[in-house]
Amino acid sequence: MAKIVENVVKSISKVAEDDPRRVIHSMKVGLAVTLVSLLYFFQPLFHDFGTSTLWAVLTVVVVFEYSVGATLGKGLNRVMATLLGGILAVGLHGLATQCGHIAEPLLISIFVFLQAALSTFARFSPKIKARYDYGFLIFILTFAFISVSGFRLQEIIDLARNRWATIVIGVFSSLLISIFVFPVWAGEDLHNLIANNIDKLASSLEGYGNSYFKIQENANAQDNEASMLQTFKTVLNTKNTEDILANFARWEPSHGAFRFKHPWKQYLNLGALTRECAFRIDTLDKQLNTNFKKILKFDDGIKEECNKITLEASKTLKELSTTLKNTSQSAPCIAHQVAESKDKIKCLKEVILKSMANLSADYEKLQVVITEITIATILNDILNYVEKMVDCNRELALLANFKQDKEYNSPDSESKNDIPAVENSGSLISTENRDNNLSNVTVVNSSQVVAITIE
Amino acid sequence: MAKIVENVVKSISKVAEDDPRRVIHSMKVGLAVTLVSLLYFFQPLFHDFGTSTLWAVLTVVVVFEYSVGATLGKGLNRVMATLLGGILAVGLHGLATQCGHIAEPLLISIFVFLQAALSTFARFSPKIKARYDYGFLIFILTFAFISVSGFRLQEIIDLARNRWATIVIGVFSSLLISIFVFPVWAGEDLHNLIANNIDKLASSLEGYGNSYFKIQENANAQDNEASMLQTFKTVLNTKNTEDILANFARWEPSHGAFRFKHPWKQYLNLGALTRECAFRIDTLDKQLNTNFKKILKFDDGIKEECNKITLEASKTLKELSTTLKNTSQSAPCIAHQVAESKDKIKCLKEVILKSMANLSADYEKLQVVITEITIATILNDILNYVEKMVDCNRELALLANFKQDKEYNSPDSESKNDIPAVENSGSLISTENRDNNLSNVTVVNSSQVVAITIE
Repeated sequence: MAKIVENVVKSISKVAEDDPRRVIHSMKVGLAVTLVSLLYFFQPLFHDFGTSTLWAVLTVVVVFEYSVGATLGKGLNRVMATLLGGILAVGLHGLATQCGHIAEPLLISIFVFLQAALSTFARFSPKIKARYDYGFLIFILTFAFISVSGFRLQEIIDLARNRWATIVIGVFSSLLISIFVFPVWAGEDLHNLIANNIDKLASSLEGYGNSYFKIQENANAQDNEASMLQTFKTVLNTKNTEDILANFARWEPSHGAFRFKHPWKQYLNLGALTRECAFRIDTLDKQLNTNFKKILKFDDGIKEECNKITLEASKTLKELSTTLKNTSQSAPCIAHQVAESKDKIKCLKEVILKSMANLSADYEKLQVVITEITIATILNDILNYVEKMVDCNRELALLANFKQDKEYNSPDSESKNDIPAVENSGSLISTENRDNNLSNVTVVNSSQVVAITIE
Repeated sequence: MAKIVENVVKSISKVAEDDPRRVIHSMKVGLAVTLVSLLYFFQPLFHDFGTSTLWAVLTVVVVFEYSVGATLGKGLNRVMATLLGGILAVGLHGLATQCGHIAEPLLISIFVFLQAALSTFARFSPKIKARYDYGFLIFILTFAFISVSGFRLQEIIDLARNRWATIVIGVFSSLLISIFVFPVWAGEDLHNLIANNIDKLASSLEGYGNSYFKIQENANAQDNEASMLQTFKTVLNTKNTEDILANFARWEPSHGAFRFKHPWKQYLNLGALTRECAFRIDTLDKQLNTNFKKILKFDDGIKEECNKITLEASKTLKELSTTLKNTSQSAPCIAHQVAESKDKIKCLKEVILKSMANLSADYEKLQVVITEITIATILNDILNYVEKMVDCNRELALLANFKQDKEYNSPDSESKNDIPAVENSGSLISTENRDNNLSNVTVVNSSQVVAITIE
């Protein structure tokens, strides 16, 4: 028994710890429901509406969602659908009553059937499902409610009007409390989710660099940090959350750095690239785990290059995440960094290639080299995605009008970069050309050949 | 204008074509709403409930979902939550009225606040969210509704009883129509979704085998079939649908081959493996597209092996999908096939290895060999997942008590299999041992070395 209580307490405190705003949200819902209930107690205010006032209470319970966007979306859907459903029901009811007392219930039944069937069918349309599903449900509900009530009640117009007015009161109260008492913005949550996901990839990459490619003092390092290495795994499954948040965010008014028509779609693009990158890190993770012993036999030079590349990729991702968090334009140094990392990949490939010159006999060496090539290919893949993420983030910052960093504006900072900014890249060609200038290219021909394979 | 109408008609017919059962479902909802409305027209039947009868109509609109499982889940949640919410409200209302007319609204307000806040908080718990979210919503709603009504109404017990009874009528009507008029079972949908996903992987693999690894008569083959090759891509994004369907399926009673406690979780496992396999096929797809020219230069022997392996993997997946669709135990020949394909991978590796003997000088040949190794690694990965899927499906068939194939039962069939059934495999060791018996192992040592790398 004590055990059960303990477990319940644990799971309760976990729910609260995961996101402390949940406690506040619960109290906000309680507050909204209570406030609207109080209105019912003051008869003078609401003697017009009678028991319809209860619809306001029900509306608050149903409409009050966690984020402002979700509440707004549901509230507007409910208000509009109740209005339209009410008008349609009153109109068709007028038509039905003119056909005599026998035809009336028959006609009303046919109308109810047709309206319910057609609206239900419309809910299957993907566009409607995404934004107006709840509206269509309420449309059916209100229409059926008003139509059927009309059979016994004379003041059907009053009923429709009361229902609508009380629903407006409920939605309005919910929105007031949702927006002005510790608001939770779906857009902000989406923004932070993406930035944190990028951060997680950075941490994992840093972990891999340190545990696998450091010139080994401590062979157990990778065990100690195992849990830290796996942080990227949560990123693989956030697509659904991102889609839902973006859907809610579209309803939200301007707040903080986010305007009403903020480019939420671009966040989904950035999220998708982050996930693709996470899948590449997953591949790296599997390779590292399976071939741990072979990696120990890597040449020190290759290990060092791998270490540098992973750490730099991690650093780039960290900076990317920071600029996103600060809602600022990404500094040109990030593009510079990616370009440098890509140059390092070239060096790595060349070192590997040189080591392949005297292979044929030694099969053990051969398999180490194959692992080296595999790892280099994956690192190259990861860098490509990091580059795409940098580009995508730059586009996002432009679309969203994020504030520009000071250095980015000053004219002399651009001339400082001797390496041309990888402005319209994502193309490997620009890096390829730059490659020819490298002083340490000794086996140019072969490097190009393998480079194409590995990319 | 005509254009708009045309587009609307097109999108309507698309919604219907995608799943013709949607049209039937829409009519079922119309029917249910209309039938319950009719009850309202017959006063003698329902003079007890008065206008509360309308709750039955509203319940049908809100509770009637696409599948039986979803309707059952929502219906049971609604019935139970209304009952509990009503009882709690009536009880606390009795307590409050005993404290005098001034304390009563105060106490009721406090109760409403506490109940709404606590229940809202409970909805954040993952376990509750998954199955009882709607129930908690209705619990808050009913409690607030009855408590607040009690302030003006004397017959609060009647109100609670009527509300509950009409909701039971609504839920019962919905369930009757949902189950007995062209039922849509979430469980069956999940079963078919997984089987079709496996089928899609099979088609894609077959396409790759035919377009890339056939000894080329027609170099444009891969263009013609491009759309067919991409069928596997839809599999990458069905996780969410699978989770939702499994959640609904748990509510469903026994139907067809599916019992009440059918192992739905195992379907999710099989679905996850299918998706992992699809990711490997995605990697294969990218490799094939990037290195198309190098693949043209593959040795004919290697091409042929690759072709055989992809076609056999495809055949295995097709058979797996068929046994699943027939809800029968998988025949032992499937395990046999996987084992044979794995032997083919060994052969492929050896052929590649032999061709590496005189490499060092020729860098162009070298890059072709690296591509060969990469492709072989990916094919090996795919085979591993096919094997895991076969195992997972066998386990599913056992857990679900699917009917056994005749040959599987006959005692002599087992002795026919000279290769030991890969019963507890997924392990590469058993295949490894078998390898030593192969007559064409000429470079045993090196093969083992590379085999470990490639796996």
